Amino acid sequence: MKQKFLAVGGDLRQLSCAKRLQERGFEVKVYGFFDLYLKGLKSGSDLTADLLKADYVLLPLPVSKDGETLNTPLWDGKISLTHLLETVRGETVIFGGMIKNSALAARNLTYDYAKNEEFLIKNAQITAEGALDIMFSETPISVFGAKIFITGYGRIGKILSRHCKALGADVFVAARSERDLSWIELSGCHPVRYDSFIDSLPGFDIIVNTVPNQIFGKEQLCRINPDCLLVDLSSVPGGIDMEAAKEIGLKTIWALSLPGKIAPYSSGNIIADTLVNLLETKKISHKE
Amino acid sequence: MKQKFLAVGGDLRQLSCAKRLQERGFEVKVYGFFDLYLKGLKSGSDLTADLLKADYVLLPLPVSKDGETLNTPLWDGKISLTHLLETVRGETVIFGGMIKNSALAARNLTYDYAKNEEFLIKNAQITAEGALDIMFSETPISVFGAKIFITGYGRIGKILSRHCKALGADVFVAARSERDLSWIELSGCHPVRYDSFIDSLPGFDIIVNTVPNQIFGKEQLCRINPDCLLVDLSSVPGGIDMEAAKEIGLKTIWALSLPGKIAPYSSGNIIADTLVNLLETKKISHKE
Amino acid sequence: MKQKFLAVGGDLRQLSCAKRLQERGFEVKVYGFFDLYLKGLKSGSDLTADLLKADYVLLPLPVSKDGETLNTPLWDGKISLTHLLETVRGETVIFGGMIKNSALAARNLTYDYAKNEEFLIKNAQITAEGALDIMFSETPISVFGAKIFITGYGRIGKILSRHCKALGADVFVAARSERDLSWIELSGCHPVRYDSFIDSLPGFDIIVNTVPNQIFGKEQLCRINPDCLLVDLSSVPGGIDMEAAKEIGLKTIWALSLPGKIAPYSSGNIIADTLVNLLETKKISHKE
Amino acid sequence: MKQKFLAVGGDLRQLSCAKRLQERGFEVKVYGFFDLYLKGLKSGSDLTADLLKADYVLLPLPVSKDGETLNTPLWDGKISLTHLLETVRGETVIFGGMIKNSALAARNLTYDYAKNEEFLIKNAQITAEGALDIMFSETPISVFGAKIFITGYGRIGKILSRHCKALGADVFVAARSERDLSWIELSGCHPVRYDSFIDSLPGFDIIVNTVPNQIFGKEQLCRINPDCLLVDLSSVPGGIDMEAAKEIGLKTIWALSLPGKIAPYSSGNIIADTLVNLLETKKISHKE
Repeated sequence: MKQKFLAVGGDLRQLSCAKRLQERGFEVKVYGFFDLYLKGLKSGSDLTADLLKADYVLLPLPVSKDGETLNTPLWDGKISLTHLLETVRGETVIFGGMIKNSALAARNLTYDYAKNEEFLIKNAQITAEGALDIMFSETPISVFGAKIFITGYGRIGKILSRHCKALGADVFVAARSERDLSWIELSGCHPVRYDSFIDSLPGFDIIVNTVPNQIFGKEQLCRINPDCLLVDLSSVPGGIDMEAAKEIGLKTIWALSLPGKIAPYSSGNIIADTLVNLLETKKISHKE
Repeated sequence: MKQKFLAVGGDLRQLSCAKRLQERGFEVKVYGFFDLYLKGLKSGSDLTADLLKADYVLLPLPVSKDGETLNTPLWDGKISLTHLLETVRGETVIFGGMIKNSALAARNLTYDYAKNEEFLIKNAQITAEGALDIMFSETPISVFGAKIFITGYGRIGKILSRHCKALGADVFVAARSERDLSWIELSGCHPVRYDSFIDSLPGFDIIVNTVPNQIFGKEQLCRINPDCLLVDLSSVPGGIDMEAAKEIGLKTIWALSLPGKIAPYSSGNIIADTLVNLLETKKISHKE
Repeated sequence: MKQKFLAVGGDLRQLSCAKRLQERGFEVKVYGFFDLYLKGLKSGSDLTADLLKADYVLLPLPVSKDGETLNTPLWDGKISLTHLLETVRGETVIFGGMIKNSALAARNLTYDYAKNEEFLIKNAQITAEGALDIMFSETPISVFGAKIFITGYGRIGKILSRHCKALGADVFVAARSERDLSWIELSGCHPVRYDSFIDSLPGFDIIVNTVPNQIFGKEQLCRINPDCLLVDLSSVPGGIDMEAAKEIGLKTIWALSLPGKIAPYSSGNIIADTLVNLLETKKISHKE
Repeated sequence: MKQKFLAVGGDLRQLSCAKRLQERGFEVKVYGFFDLYLKGLKSGSDLTADLLKADYVLLPLPVSKDGETLNTPLWDGKISLTHLLETVRGETVIFGGMIKNSALAARNLTYDYAKNEEFLIKNAQITAEGALDIMFSETPISVFGAKIFITGYGRIGKILSRHCKALGADVFVAARSERDLSWIELSGCHPVRYDSFIDSLPGFDIIVNTVPNQIFGKEQLCRINPDCLLVDLSSVPGGIDMEAAKEIGLKTIWALSLPGKIAPYSSGNIIADTLVNLLETKKISHKE
């Protein structure tokens, strides 16, 4: 017998995730979407009943925006998180992205896929495409031949620097550890140390920050070429003093949550693949 | 003494071209722009006098849209092509892009840089970036992992297929000659013969046409996956039966003149570099 | 009924070609090999009878070394080309590589696959691997970070420059046409004009010539860094004045026929695929 | 005043390291080489006196083969490690590679550069080139199109898989962590789990092991295609049961210490750059 997934709330990612789960052999119902979004997916009509039957409940990314109700951007109803938690059986696994609700987080058999390494790496790939998209759209120059500076060599920095290099840019990457600096050099990019990076700032066409600390304060921003585009991909509080940048007149874009915007279907598929992988390798399973 | 360039009319490309020419050692004046666009470039005030002094006259791309007046999208004045031709000295070289005016074309020392191979190849690079930009913006999927079909292996097909491959797509390319099919295979893409390509159409996420013949008629369009994005990069008459595509409900984008839209500065620089190269290798020179 | 191939003479390439043809659905016999080389291939015992039955006769690459007998390096017998030509039926197709015998060349239904574009391109890929092998083995430096100069941007130059670039070398390529120089630039390598290339010679770690004209005479050789390795991949007469190089003391390797040496199996497969392709697209067929 | 380096013993790597240190501003003497190897380097004549003057002493990689005397393959003298240690001043920094002598290891201001991350990463790049060289030389097939399996995704696995991919191979990589498996997938290779890898063994043309545990026992070796080449890059005890492989008749190469063999000059430069980097970033300095 097929195992049952109930996907409640969320955006296009949730729907493509539901579809992929269905393709990979699960029985899937969705709840919390206007009909026109369903496209062949089976919608539940009785949330309480469906929650009780589910082997797995899939909550959206982020689970909630107000902390109390589920995030349902493609529906006009409301679903209380507390109600959901009280209804669902103890042996049911709940998956959710960026879980902040303490009752949900404290529950056994709850898994936050947004902290999963596989998800994060594949999501970073989509973020990197989003960053390229911004470079194409928001500058009057081609990436080929552009002098691009990327701060940080985590998941996004690694992927984005390779992409820019593959498209023919001259790529500089700042990193902290000698290890990362060596890898940057091996990948054909120029390694930059943070303690000296301020001197290289004037020459860049595009700067992309991936570090969630304020690396670009007024002192740094003053050195940047006035035609340069600054893109901040880091999460709150961000790496750029936006007020100072505005004063100076630098063009700055703080691009958050790119995957859901630029490639919701692929993002949903990544979530599905991450979950299937967790289940297949028995890292997570519902009680039987 | 510096040689004199007069750049008349055109868009942002003309201005960045003028700037680059100045950087590369020419004395440059521009004409046919509102003041706010000049940013440090020297504007001429007397066109007739400036034309008489110029060693080189640079006309825009395209030179004219109505066949009579110069293409001046960043100005509200009018410049008659006939007047310009009558004024300019015989020993002055005129450069222009996509010259259709017969008097201009017939003139000695007139050069259409839009037919120059160096210009065309470097321009194709920017077109390929524009195509990537469309793929990012207009589909809900990531290029990484996408199944992409490119028809034609000319300049754009060559560059775009490599870029898509570098970004992790599964790339298929249709070409006519065995030679091209072999190169496609060597580049890590899948070669497709035109006589059998119709069978592979259902599987693609994105199709990009670069061939200016109608390859995609109703018969072909019927086979394409309904979620597939079709991008036509070929010039008039295009390669897709747009009416049939509309009837069937396929998402189609006919993207013309991408370089001027996506990267006007780089496009202008390419024009400048092409001209400088022509002059330095003495393939073209004004009479002295 | 299966079509019959008779492969006569040749080296390991001929054998892997025969094997591949067998896998792709032909009935294959070989002739002109010591038994220990056969490994499951069926050897003919009566050449005359087999020649009469064959739909296709496959001769080696090169067909002959002395102009009279077939090239049979893996056998101690002799096969006269004249005898073979007199025996084979008029409707049988003969394939051979580098056919120089005039009677054979003049015959109808004779095809020199060594002139076929598909073969040449895929063979160039193997030659490029052979060149990398030489770079690895014959220099005390790594290709990563090496400054490499390649003369010529034909098949081998195109592939080898990309490979060196992918391995992290700093790659310079000399070419004649503006078109090629533009492509070189787009591929991330440095374009070099022949008229000025002599000035850049002192800086290279490795120089690879692919042009079959003497580009490197005494004047050029004098300028080359004494530690530099020179590899000549061009066919006779070669591109390097070997005597002058010896006098000066430069390390020089003239590497001919690399594919048969470095990857005979893959080379044989390429021949087979080329033949099958020719037959499938009906570019060649025996009379029925 | 220039700081003094004394390089004692070692092979070609030591000499190119010495040369590079000289180029980067140090006063360098070498000791323990036949004269013909010196090529412009200044040889010391009185080891005791030179040791006393040195700010830095550079020992070879490995420091010693017998545990008592220095490793001096390019000289016929003997240098006692104990004598060296007793002579050198306490404030002098000693650098060495793979230090096993306990007195040397226990000393203050002793640094084993063979454990340095920068050195290890750049050395892995050279090892990867060595592995490619073996693939080219020891198989009759081209890397382009070959089906290659790499076990382990450490430094060498990461670099080698990218290189093989860039050359057009179909690359499979086995790794333990989900994180590594995701990165492998993103890099365009096929991720393989250890618990199921045995099933994919029959299909490979080349297998390269980088893991220093015996992954390939008899059970695994039995499954491998008889034409497959096995390369073991892992250090003692290696990852392949060599005896079992021999019985079965598999072609196996255990390639140790590739960098010193395939690219001694570059290897020496890497050592020099690692040392200079350590000194410049003040991670190490002699007492003043």
